[in-house]
Amino acid sequence: MERCVFCDILAGRADGTLVHRDAAVSVLMDIQPVNAGHMLVVPNVHAPGLKELGPDVAAEMFRVAHRMALALRVGELPCDGVNLFLADGAAAMQEVFHVHLHVIPRLNGDGFGFRFDASYFERPTRADLETAAEKVRRAVSSLR
Amino acid sequence: MERCVFCDILAGRADGTLVHRDAAVSVLMDIQPVNAGHMLVVPNVHAPGLKELGPDVAAEMFRVAHRMALALRVGELPCDGVNLFLADGAAAMQEVFHVHLHVIPRLNGDGFGFRFDASYFERPTRADLETAAEKVRRAVSSLR
Repeated sequence: MERCVFCDILAGRADGTLVHRDAAVSVLMDIQPVNAGHMLVVPNVHAPGLKELGPDVAAEMFRVAHRMALALRVGELPCDGVNLFLADGAAAMQEVFHVHLHVIPRLNGDGFGFRFDASYFERPTRADLETAAEKVRRAVSSLR
Repeated sequence: MERCVFCDILAGRADGTLVHRDAAVSVLMDIQPVNAGHMLVVPNVHAPGLKELGPDVAAEMFRVAHRMALALRVGELPCDGVNLFLADGAAAMQEVFHVHLHVIPRLNGDGFGFRFDASYFERPTRADLETAAEKVRRAVSSLR
């Protein structure tokens, strides 16, 4: 098994700064924050991606992320807004293959944002949306 | 009370394409998708932001988003990865003030990504991270 930096931190084998730990999830400070207070909510048990993550642990990750977002809003660090972000798979910009949900304090004018391909600005028709939705519904039905 | 486009869709007063609906949350197709299959998970009861959202509904939103992500991975629409994204507050790029969690299918080379301020690339020291963490911990303690 490959070394996992988040597993190493959670096991005390590597440096990390923990904000919270409960039975299912932990919260670490991101070492490359968008702004001070940027955190990562991670499951305590290794799961490379969403496929390997149980639904109860997924729900708990978000419950904790929600609480961290509320804390950022009332805390001492500057915070005008919050982004929650998760990348599943290299194509989605995942870099560490232990699921992690970013909790990112945002400041007015902090320069963080998205870049889009030009095709983003061509809106689909309602029929296109219905066709895509039907494909997703079939896929949902196929899940156990 | 201002009109809310998601409330209007959920009430059948405006066009929308629903993929899923349960007691707590619904899933709509995003009308400006990053890629086909881009969805929004929304609470059925209006909540402008995370502050107005109960923790149980928050957890349910993510449980459903997780399931939609798994469906995208096995479904007919092209999908090499998935991003989950939520914006809380105008500073965080929130545009519709009814909480919504994006579920975004990603394709290799689709051109979607982040832009960062130059300061992003200056990493904080461990002491900086500990100081920020201590401020967040105090804020978490202050929540009811």
